[in-house]
Amino acid sequence: MDKRIIVATHGGFSEGILSSLHMVAGDIGPIECITAYVDKDVDYQVEFRRIVSEHDYSKAELFVLTDVLGGSVNNEFMQLLAEYPFHLITGINFALLLEMSMCPVEELVESLPRIVSAAREHIVLCDTLLDRGDEEDEGNSF
Amino acid sequence: MDKRIIVATHGGFSEGILSSLHMVAGDIGPIECITAYVDKDVDYQVEFRRIVSEHDYSKAELFVLTDVLGGSVNNEFMQLLAEYPFHLITGINFALLLEMSMCPVEELVESLPRIVSAAREHIVLCDTLLDRGDEEDEGNSF
Repeated sequence: MDKRIIVATHGGFSEGILSSLHMVAGDIGPIECITAYVDKDVDYQVEFRRIVSEHDYSKAELFVLTDVLGGSVNNEFMQLLAEYPFHLITGINFALLLEMSMCPVEELVESLPRIVSAAREHIVLCDTLLDRGDEEDEGNSF
Repeated sequence: MDKRIIVATHGGFSEGILSSLHMVAGDIGPIECITAYVDKDVDYQVEFRRIVSEHDYSKAELFVLTDVLGGSVNNEFMQLLAEYPFHLITGINFALLLEMSMCPVEELVESLPRIVSAAREHIVLCDTLLDRGDEEDEGNSF
């Protein structure tokens, strides 16, 4: 079983985060990219359905990563999630994408809740990590 | 007091997420963008210091948003956080950037812990939101 990852976002977010991923992690294998609603001649609802319906689920687990809960891209894939056995993760950040791209496929499905949880912990207000002179009540430091 | 937001990431992530933000939210005012380590002729450590040292803190609150905790970009700004009174948030996703761009400056500093917390909640394994035939133990649904 292989893994197939598709990053689908409004506009160029997907393209940008993937270029950064390749810069940091080097060759982590192919990750597909959808820059939705950029081309006005494309019906993205049809395109999303085509992708998940034509995927061969006997050969590879399919993971679709989107930009934001409640956004159009994620809403479209949510509809398809009722029909096709892919995995859908939204609200992606760099830590999530890095972890998913590095995780072996045989561990990835089982690890998804842990990876999501870890990616959440990676969103940090760093002001609170530092004991600064202008802060009085922070107990945390590196 | 104004607000000044700078998104600084390895490579094109910052550029991509900002293009998507403008696509979704329209004109949300200027947000600056640093695509770090793309230009080999630029000393980014010097550049980051120049930005935070030349900022006029009496005129605007400065918020620097970076890609990943423990990454080079965030590490460099962490060093500067000990010297300059800006705010540093890492692990950004779309929800965080959207919320920060929409929040009035007079509420933003105080709201940062809540915004960070909400952005974390926006990273979701959507499989668990849907009662699917191939899942047996999920109690959540829309």
